[in-house]
Amino acid sequence: MKMWFVIVATGIGVGVAGAWLDVLVKWLGDLREGRCSYGFFYNQVACCSGLDPGEICTEWRTWSEWFRIHSILGQSLLQSLVYMALAVAFAGSAAILVQSYAPYAFHTGIPEIKAILGGYVLDAFLSPWTLLIKGIGLALSVASGLSLGKEGPLVHVACCMAYNLSGVFQQFRNNEAQKRKLLAAAAAAGVSVAFGSPLGGVLFGLEELETFSNENDVIWRGFVTSVIAAVSLQYVDPFGTAKLVLFQVTSGSDTWRAFELVPWLFLGVVGGVLGSLLIKLNVAAAVYRRNSVLHEWPVLEVIGVSAITAAVSYLVVFLRVQSSELVANLFQECDANKGDYHGLCNPVAMWRNIFLLLLTAVVKIGLTAWTFGMMVPAGIFLPTIAIGASLGRAVGLLTQGLYRAHPTAWVFSSCPPDPTVRCISPGFYAVVGASAMLGGVTRMTISLVVILFELTGALSHVLPIMISVMVSKWVGDAFGEGGIYSAWIAMRRYPWIPSVEYRDKGEIAAHMMKPVQELVVIENRGCTLKDLDLMMKTHQFHGFPVIQEGLLLGYVMRDKLNISLESYFTGMNASSRLERPCSFLPVRADRSETLDLSPILETSVFQLRKEVPQELVINMFQKLNLRHIVFTQSGKLTGMMTKTDVVSFLNADFPHAAALAIPPDPDSYS
Amino acid sequence: MKMWFVIVATGIGVGVAGAWLDVLVKWLGDLREGRCSYGFFYNQVACCSGLDPGEICTEWRTWSEWFRIHSILGQSLLQSLVYMALAVAFAGSAAILVQSYAPYAFHTGIPEIKAILGGYVLDAFLSPWTLLIKGIGLALSVASGLSLGKEGPLVHVACCMAYNLSGVFQQFRNNEAQKRKLLAAAAAAGVSVAFGSPLGGVLFGLEELETFSNENDVIWRGFVTSVIAAVSLQYVDPFGTAKLVLFQVTSGSDTWRAFELVPWLFLGVVGGVLGSLLIKLNVAAAVYRRNSVLHEWPVLEVIGVSAITAAVSYLVVFLRVQSSELVANLFQECDANKGDYHGLCNPVAMWRNIFLLLLTAVVKIGLTAWTFGMMVPAGIFLPTIAIGASLGRAVGLLTQGLYRAHPTAWVFSSCPPDPTVRCISPGFYAVVGASAMLGGVTRMTISLVVILFELTGALSHVLPIMISVMVSKWVGDAFGEGGIYSAWIAMRRYPWIPSVEYRDKGEIAAHMMKPVQELVVIENRGCTLKDLDLMMKTHQFHGFPVIQEGLLLGYVMRDKLNISLESYFTGMNASSRLERPCSFLPVRADRSETLDLSPILETSVFQLRKEVPQELVINMFQKLNLRHIVFTQSGKLTGMMTKTDVVSFLNADFPHAAALAIPPDPDSYS
Repeated sequence: MKMWFVIVATGIGVGVAGAWLDVLVKWLGDLREGRCSYGFFYNQVACCSGLDPGEICTEWRTWSEWFRIHSILGQSLLQSLVYMALAVAFAGSAAILVQSYAPYAFHTGIPEIKAILGGYVLDAFLSPWTLLIKGIGLALSVASGLSLGKEGPLVHVACCMAYNLSGVFQQFRNNEAQKRKLLAAAAAAGVSVAFGSPLGGVLFGLEELETFSNENDVIWRGFVTSVIAAVSLQYVDPFGTAKLVLFQVTSGSDTWRAFELVPWLFLGVVGGVLGSLLIKLNVAAAVYRRNSVLHEWPVLEVIGVSAITAAVSYLVVFLRVQSSELVANLFQECDANKGDYHGLCNPVAMWRNIFLLLLTAVVKIGLTAWTFGMMVPAGIFLPTIAIGASLGRAVGLLTQGLYRAHPTAWVFSSCPPDPTVRCISPGFYAVVGASAMLGGVTRMTISLVVILFELTGALSHVLPIMISVMVSKWVGDAFGEGGIYSAWIAMRRYPWIPSVEYRDKGEIAAHMMKPVQELVVIENRGCTLKDLDLMMKTHQFHGFPVIQEGLLLGYVMRDKLNISLESYFTGMNASSRLERPCSFLPVRADRSETLDLSPILETSVFQLRKEVPQELVINMFQKLNLRHIVFTQSGKLTGMMTKTDVVSFLNADFPHAAALAIPPDPDSYS
Repeated sequence: MKMWFVIVATGIGVGVAGAWLDVLVKWLGDLREGRCSYGFFYNQVACCSGLDPGEICTEWRTWSEWFRIHSILGQSLLQSLVYMALAVAFAGSAAILVQSYAPYAFHTGIPEIKAILGGYVLDAFLSPWTLLIKGIGLALSVASGLSLGKEGPLVHVACCMAYNLSGVFQQFRNNEAQKRKLLAAAAAAGVSVAFGSPLGGVLFGLEELETFSNENDVIWRGFVTSVIAAVSLQYVDPFGTAKLVLFQVTSGSDTWRAFELVPWLFLGVVGGVLGSLLIKLNVAAAVYRRNSVLHEWPVLEVIGVSAITAAVSYLVVFLRVQSSELVANLFQECDANKGDYHGLCNPVAMWRNIFLLLLTAVVKIGLTAWTFGMMVPAGIFLPTIAIGASLGRAVGLLTQGLYRAHPTAWVFSSCPPDPTVRCISPGFYAVVGASAMLGGVTRMTISLVVILFELTGALSHVLPIMISVMVSKWVGDAFGEGGIYSAWIAMRRYPWIPSVEYRDKGEIAAHMMKPVQELVVIENRGCTLKDLDLMMKTHQFHGFPVIQEGLLLGYVMRDKLNISLESYFTGMNASSRLERPCSFLPVRADRSETLDLSPILETSVFQLRKEVPQELVINMFQKLNLRHIVFTQSGKLTGMMTKTDVVSFLNADFPHAAALAIPPDPDSYS
């Protein structure tokens, strides 16, 4: 019951928050260009609403109109100055907020959520403070025009909501597993709202967060949260469109032709290559930032980059607008009745458009690689879509140009003979490009396809989208497995085990485990409080095996041992009692001088023989969410393996593993 | 590489097979009504192709036209006789084929596939014979007009293909895990082709077959197979439509109104209730069939039921047509330009239509509950969709009637004022009804939604579909958890562990395990071949723990022991050597009279303490695909638990568990 209450409340909360975020971003973004004459808090669309079609909106004033500047030079100077000043102001304040109040609110949040769902405990990441700062900071950073999106951070916001709501109930406070299930459902709601894609949300949880593994009830809860969040969003309906489909594709034709597979496959390959490149650039930028002086001046870095972004973007028309607007227009087919978007539909300007689109893509790759990782909330989805859509549209324009130049060539023989019927839809090429690029960057498959066609409504074209995602993942994997989130997890050294299929070459667990000689163990016989105290001070491990004459008695967790010792030491002269013996086996009543620690000993630990194949051991860590496995032989301890060992083992071939590890003790998972 | 070869070949094979199956079914189905004048092997559509719109097809002759019967009585008598005779002939031959050549080709096959993917070994189920008979039998049984669909059996066909293709390579022949991964990918291809739904296929594998659990590469392979199968199907393009969307919904409006949630929620509730009822009826019918005389005359039963089905169906217009045609028309909106489907769009005949639709639903529930489980290949998806679509269309007609009677009532105030614009789309109500009914019967969620909107293309209405599935699953679960496939798995007692979240109430493994006193164990010291031989003859277990003075040495599998003993006994007078001692510990060279069985002893068995919580043990069986867990205490054997124990434990509250168990030894999994 309480579970469902939290799920429903989270769903509604995320839906409403998502809607208000949209409104805020739109208003802040429009403020960079001008203001509404009759009210400061109206955005451009709201300001101009209620007009008849064709009427020109006079209520919305650009800044030069508002300040009545008449000279052309003064106008463009003022416009560009305000545009840049506000961009820098927004980005700077986002960075200051994040740095001062909630450092965990930076970046996308998805790597952390993956790690948390995999068992990592990081409460600061989900605090109310983080929730607040991430929400406000996200609105500011998106409005600043930096090359980032709101999708990943919204997932983080959703998880914060669920976490703080669940904190109300005792039931969840001490149950990490229950809490994780709620977070998984909340993540689905976040994606659902970010893309207006309730199905995609569930699938994202399924594929990228890998939380649902074998439990149908978690899919089911994610499904419900996702639906409720989407319904709330649609109910609030921030832009009065009553539609969930954000970037409606109005493709003229329902069918596609076989020859179009050639440009689409090409886009798939390009998406795979550029996606890998983007990951590599982003990793390089992150490593450079950490090791250079930039590391100490994160706010200045944000201000600098936002100024550069604003300056560069102001020059290229497709970069100046918000990414979401750009994508919406690139996905749109040209339609004589609807007007032309910055000359995109002008057949004479084909080469100019192709050049501008490619330029946009290149600049955006550079900016995104740098921006994703700065001290502001930043998602990578939308910029990636924008890059892919630009490339796709360019390829689409080129194909269309070829067709127009040689309409009778044999490759185009499957086009309808009537030249007024559209044969090639460049807007759909943009969709294909976006999916290929996303595939290359995130290496997701099925959830990506669902999100994309929920975004665009291009259901009849599901096959081309699937093919391009398939090809780009294939190509991308050839340049190195794992998407951008895995790279960040490895760099930050979260204890998260990738769900790759590991195959040993006959190695057994004994080759990978820490043998008993190297382990810090508690020998039960003759153990005194002094020994324990010393051991706790020397070693940072999270638990210790307890043995007696080589036989394993059990495992004791550091925190439990800490509590026991502290409660014992409290209120008495500690040093005088340090010599007291203690035992992890139940103490007989007649030997009361021995401290009985048996209640805190976990006797049901996982025991395996060290001869089991490595792949089985890794499989167990992957599927059972274990923290450690103890190896015994006829009851005798032979070795141990922890989650951290497995993570380092699997990340051994990633060059920048742990490059950004921040916590002093990286294996603080519970 | 070989893996990818099998995947690609399976994808192509399934696509082509699905296409040819469609052609065969269409031809056989049309044959019941008439034949083409210029060629026996043309179906009605092919026969009449090439005509201008509006032209009447004269080449297709009904049987009465072909035999030139002019009296009305004679005509309808002949038509109905041929219709029934062919129905009985088709169904009867399907049953004879199945009974004589491949008993495993009966039914849908999905429960068996779930069990196989869960670790059950049932090679006969995937033999080439089964493949052939299932394919032909499926075409015959679908064409016979029995209340069944081709979707589930196509998944079975796809799995047979993958299995037999993989048998070509040594690599797969002895690797059950690899084989299972191929089967999972093939299942996705089956659904992909059955519904023209490549995404739905992957999701079906994910949700219903629960195979992909934690391994992204299996999702990925399913994705590729699914795409290839869909591309092949579209390439063969059996009906020349070049569309994957089978039941295109042409909803006039993209938006829906809030008041429509009331009828949709009602449909969700009805779907949940009737879905549970259908499951209960089907289980009751199956149990009755097994315990009555019908069990011995399966072919006669099929003939009888097909005759009754044909007779009843011939009387009601919506029952007479093939289910797929019915569904396609129920999903269609009324359109003045398109003609009326059996008066469905006639506003005057509203009550007649509602009555006929409800009658269709009721009759179909009864027929389906009986048919699903007879000795013919039979899927439950399509009949369920047909039942739900009939109900949904009826509710839609009722809502539309209410609106037409009171267009100005306040509930309808959100409808557009212009009466020529359609406010209520009964066709979409049919989609909602179908999804609710499917939700109630199968209890799937996310894959259902994807399949449904890939089937219909109704992307803008994804939220209502999700809501109805959600409600129907909620309601259905209140009447008993688990869909129809789980019920069949339990009845046939397959060793398949449902992935429910089991929570113990403090019970530990010791309460559930078989304690050492009740186990059949091999005592290593003093063990002779005679003992082993006797033990193998007395007990049917699949393996035995080996102990020495209470300490566990390992576990020996029955089949390995069998091979060792047989190779030893071969060629010598067995009885004389029965007294020879044997040992599962390595034998020293100077004691060569002892038979060394140590090579076949598995020493790396799963060992736990019996104090571990029950939920952890069950979780391990669910996630690690284990066959048994051995419990030890300081090396001493204390008990054991097998997969079969867990299955019986979890099925304890299902009244008909094992009612249909056929194999003499139900736990024959490897």
